[in-house]
Amino acid sequence: MYREELKVLDCTIRDGGLINNYQFQDDLVKAVYRAACDSGVDIIELGKKLAVSDEYTREKYGRWNFCDDDDLRMIVDSHDSDYRPLVAVMFDVGRVDIAGLKPADQSPIDMIRTACYVADIDKGIDLVKRSKDLGYLTTINIMACSAAIETDLVEALGQVNEADEIDYLYLVDSYGAFYSEQVTAYLNLYKKYAPDKELGFHAHNNQQLAFSNTQQAIIEGVNLLDATVNGIGRGAGNCNLELLLNFLKNPKFDVRPIYDAIQNHFVPLRREIEWGFNDIYGISGHLNQHPREAMKFRADEKIRDNCYDFLVSSMRLEP
Amino acid sequence: MYREELKVLDCTIRDGGLINNYQFQDDLVKAVYRAACDSGVDIIELGKKLAVSDEYTREKYGRWNFCDDDDLRMIVDSHDSDYRPLVAVMFDVGRVDIAGLKPADQSPIDMIRTACYVADIDKGIDLVKRSKDLGYLTTINIMACSAAIETDLVEALGQVNEADEIDYLYLVDSYGAFYSEQVTAYLNLYKKYAPDKELGFHAHNNQQLAFSNTQQAIIEGVNLLDATVNGIGRGAGNCNLELLLNFLKNPKFDVRPIYDAIQNHFVPLRREIEWGFNDIYGISGHLNQHPREAMKFRADEKIRDNCYDFLVSSMRLEP
Repeated sequence: MYREELKVLDCTIRDGGLINNYQFQDDLVKAVYRAACDSGVDIIELGKKLAVSDEYTREKYGRWNFCDDDDLRMIVDSHDSDYRPLVAVMFDVGRVDIAGLKPADQSPIDMIRTACYVADIDKGIDLVKRSKDLGYLTTINIMACSAAIETDLVEALGQVNEADEIDYLYLVDSYGAFYSEQVTAYLNLYKKYAPDKELGFHAHNNQQLAFSNTQQAIIEGVNLLDATVNGIGRGAGNCNLELLLNFLKNPKFDVRPIYDAIQNHFVPLRREIEWGFNDIYGISGHLNQHPREAMKFRADEKIRDNCYDFLVSSMRLEP
Repeated sequence: MYREELKVLDCTIRDGGLINNYQFQDDLVKAVYRAACDSGVDIIELGKKLAVSDEYTREKYGRWNFCDDDDLRMIVDSHDSDYRPLVAVMFDVGRVDIAGLKPADQSPIDMIRTACYVADIDKGIDLVKRSKDLGYLTTINIMACSAAIETDLVEALGQVNEADEIDYLYLVDSYGAFYSEQVTAYLNLYKKYAPDKELGFHAHNNQQLAFSNTQQAIIEGVNLLDATVNGIGRGAGNCNLELLLNFLKNPKFDVRPIYDAIQNHFVPLRREIEWGFNDIYGISGHLNQHPREAMKFRADEKIRDNCYDFLVSSMRLEP
């Protein structure tokens, strides 16, 4: 698949950090940045931008939960490259100190992605507007839309369409619940009620469908695609960046630096933390459930592979 | 997805046996048969039907490479069930003793699937005809069509269409190379040049696309779907039967017995033998290569995760 408008966003550190509370070694973050530069990825998201507080400290929550300018510069300056991807961070509604945000031209950040549930769409749009006022590229990522009531979602999409400050609107399969036909159906809804917006897509791999659903989104006209090195991400993880670059024919991409990062940094990391498809996440995705129960189940060494027990308890049926 | 005509074929033992040379414990084969009965799967393939010889002995190659009637009856008789799936076995062109095959009404076998490359299509069709003469349901599974020259494939499809003895024609993604668009394109070719044949689809999971490509085949009108418990199969394995049954809405299916089999038999088996997606198979699938090099690479403990090295050597490029 080749289409000139296609852009790839590497959210390895931001989504991967949900597994280990953003306690990555600097070397790994630098390796991912280097791979993003050398492979021609368009945008790299290096973490969340939460407000520091007595409770939310950098020590406890990891520096990539806060993405201070100095930390971002330490990464960006670590690799000498003619080509550099844009740098993105993520805002979580309700956990942001926007007053502390500098104008874009004084910051290493280029893009701010605001994640919110349908119920918080007004707060989300407000954060986007304030980000845009400071000069940032913006996205709004409506989470868990597979569990939203359609009338609420439609209303939110209309509001998004009216907000000129939003550059990209994201379809997010938070629970890894979508089949390809549902990706198409939801995108048709997004195109109908937010026709003026460029679209993005963010998958989860609960049912081994993150990569194929991303392909389906491309077929349906989505131009901004999220992926992570080796599919790292909370629970079942995300669309594998290397598989996606293999698929895309845009000559600007080179997959080899991604495989280099996997071999040298992610193979060792896989021995420390777990991500990717397994039976338990497959069930939670199929049942369109938040992954928290599945993650709790996987964390218990004694029962983590008891998929039949998990299915039966999740379906609330007698065995 | 619901369509009354949809049938599911469990080839767990036949394709899984390619990993361990068909050395399954009887208890596991019985558990898979029980799960197939209790979940409502339409057909179960219990192995290959090769000719025994001095070189090819049951001891060395495992009983499910030969599928003697007594062995099949031992499995079928092990579970008392009102519903029973049809029993299938696979013929490999050139390794079959068809003179020793009994008529279908004297055998526990209901269906014979003949696997052949495009180059051997005449031999394959001959085996199908002789199977049909003995009263069996038949399929022809054209292997590695992603690597076939299209004019040869088209000629073979025309021959298949003329052979009334063939009940099902299979599209087989032997190398795990297909994206969904290619599944559609090849199926269009099959429908154009073999319009009288019911179609089947057999996927491989090299690029995490076995399940999604099987969905695509359903969308394109294929009615006979191969899958295996937990996706077991050579290399990257196959379409996961449990994911497929979750997807299908036909009320005849119940996924719970499959998860029961996984929890009690396949979780322990996963500690002994490896199958499923990994970086190396992802590369060989993308490059449309036979998995033998990838399997050799995975078998070497020292290099098995060196995906960058494998990519570069497979692409015959300098690093």
